[in-house]
Amino acid sequence: MTPTLHGYWRSTAAYRVRIALALKRVDYTQVTHDLRTGAHREPGFRALNPQALVPALETDDAVLTQSPSILEWIDETYPDPPLLPADAQGRAVVRAMAATIACDIHPVNNLRILNALRSEFGADDAAVNRWIARWIGEGFAALEVMIARHGSRFAFGATPTIADCHLVPQVYSAERFGVDLTPYPHLKAAADTARALPAFAAAHPDRQPDADRP
Amino acid sequence: MTPTLHGYWRSTAAYRVRIALALKRVDYTQVTHDLRTGAHREPGFRALNPQALVPALETDDAVLTQSPSILEWIDETYPDPPLLPADAQGRAVVRAMAATIACDIHPVNNLRILNALRSEFGADDAAVNRWIARWIGEGFAALEVMIARHGSRFAFGATPTIADCHLVPQVYSAERFGVDLTPYPHLKAAADTARALPAFAAAHPDRQPDADRP
Repeated sequence: MTPTLHGYWRSTAAYRVRIALALKRVDYTQVTHDLRTGAHREPGFRALNPQALVPALETDDAVLTQSPSILEWIDETYPDPPLLPADAQGRAVVRAMAATIACDIHPVNNLRILNALRSEFGADDAAVNRWIARWIGEGFAALEVMIARHGSRFAFGATPTIADCHLVPQVYSAERFGVDLTPYPHLKAAADTARALPAFAAAHPDRQPDADRP
Repeated sequence: MTPTLHGYWRSTAAYRVRIALALKRVDYTQVTHDLRTGAHREPGFRALNPQALVPALETDDAVLTQSPSILEWIDETYPDPPLLPADAQGRAVVRAMAATIACDIHPVNNLRILNALRSEFGADDAAVNRWIARWIGEGFAALEVMIARHGSRFAFGATPTIADCHLVPQVYSAERFGVDLTPYPHLKAAADTARALPAFAAAHPDRQPDADRP
């Protein structure tokens, strides 16, 4: 059976998984959970994923959760093309780039945290936007150095890796919130190279079946 | 040359790496960066790690960053004992447990975020403690279900994995901030089993050379 991706068009974590599945040419079905209405917190989905977050990848045998873990599983299960370098040190750099986004940018800017800033501390739109820009800026400044050092056409070397699977969605989010990317030319160039590929383009939020239509 | 761990006694991310190195019986040197005084932001350390966060593991060839990536590198470089299950599905569960802590609990509760809540939103101690308890609670509730399902003596199965390397430091942090763990009996039991082992005990913050002395 083809796997089922529980996601949401504008979730950047689900976007990472869509990119990896597209790069590996894996067919899959999508089930959407509207994060704006809290649909992901309904008991049916929580029974599948105790954390009630998207994405979750439902296979014949299991429900896999947490996008960094899902990307590793996809790379192990569908080895071609590889999304990690062949050597341990290269893998460590790629995973560190991915974790800079997956641990230090995305989680502090996701919807549940922004909602908590509003409800707990009365943050207004301007304060929320400053919060978002701050953590993207700190993370991207570090990634810019890493990509300048290790990148070639892509974030690491000359082929897409899980670093690019994380980078392109985070750049999408940065642009959505109006973050200026001119201080990060190597990062921007790597993201532009990656998102020009058909697999990355097909995974874009606007091209998903559950996207808002203008 | 033995590797050098750039850390800080009370950093739970550095604590994860200390546990993994101890489980693998790898000798290493420690360099401390006092997060309270901002010592980690000095140019010398930023030249080694562009993100200027701890931990960083300095080897003969490279400076590895981001603890989830460092743990994978340690497991690949020192295979015995393995810290990931032999099958892809088991690895996916263990990595998802680790990411629940590394992505969804720790980053929203670390010192730079708590400082930002105080400076941006005027959060007082009570508000900061509520914030900490909330994200630990949401993450631990999901982990409790996962550990009840997949754990045996440890978080996953009968031997320590990278899930335990993440869990024990997060439980240390929860106890430090007075979070009630009685709703999470399987999680608590797994943490208790793990931290009774000599390798986990040796990695405890209070046993590090840079720890505050009473």
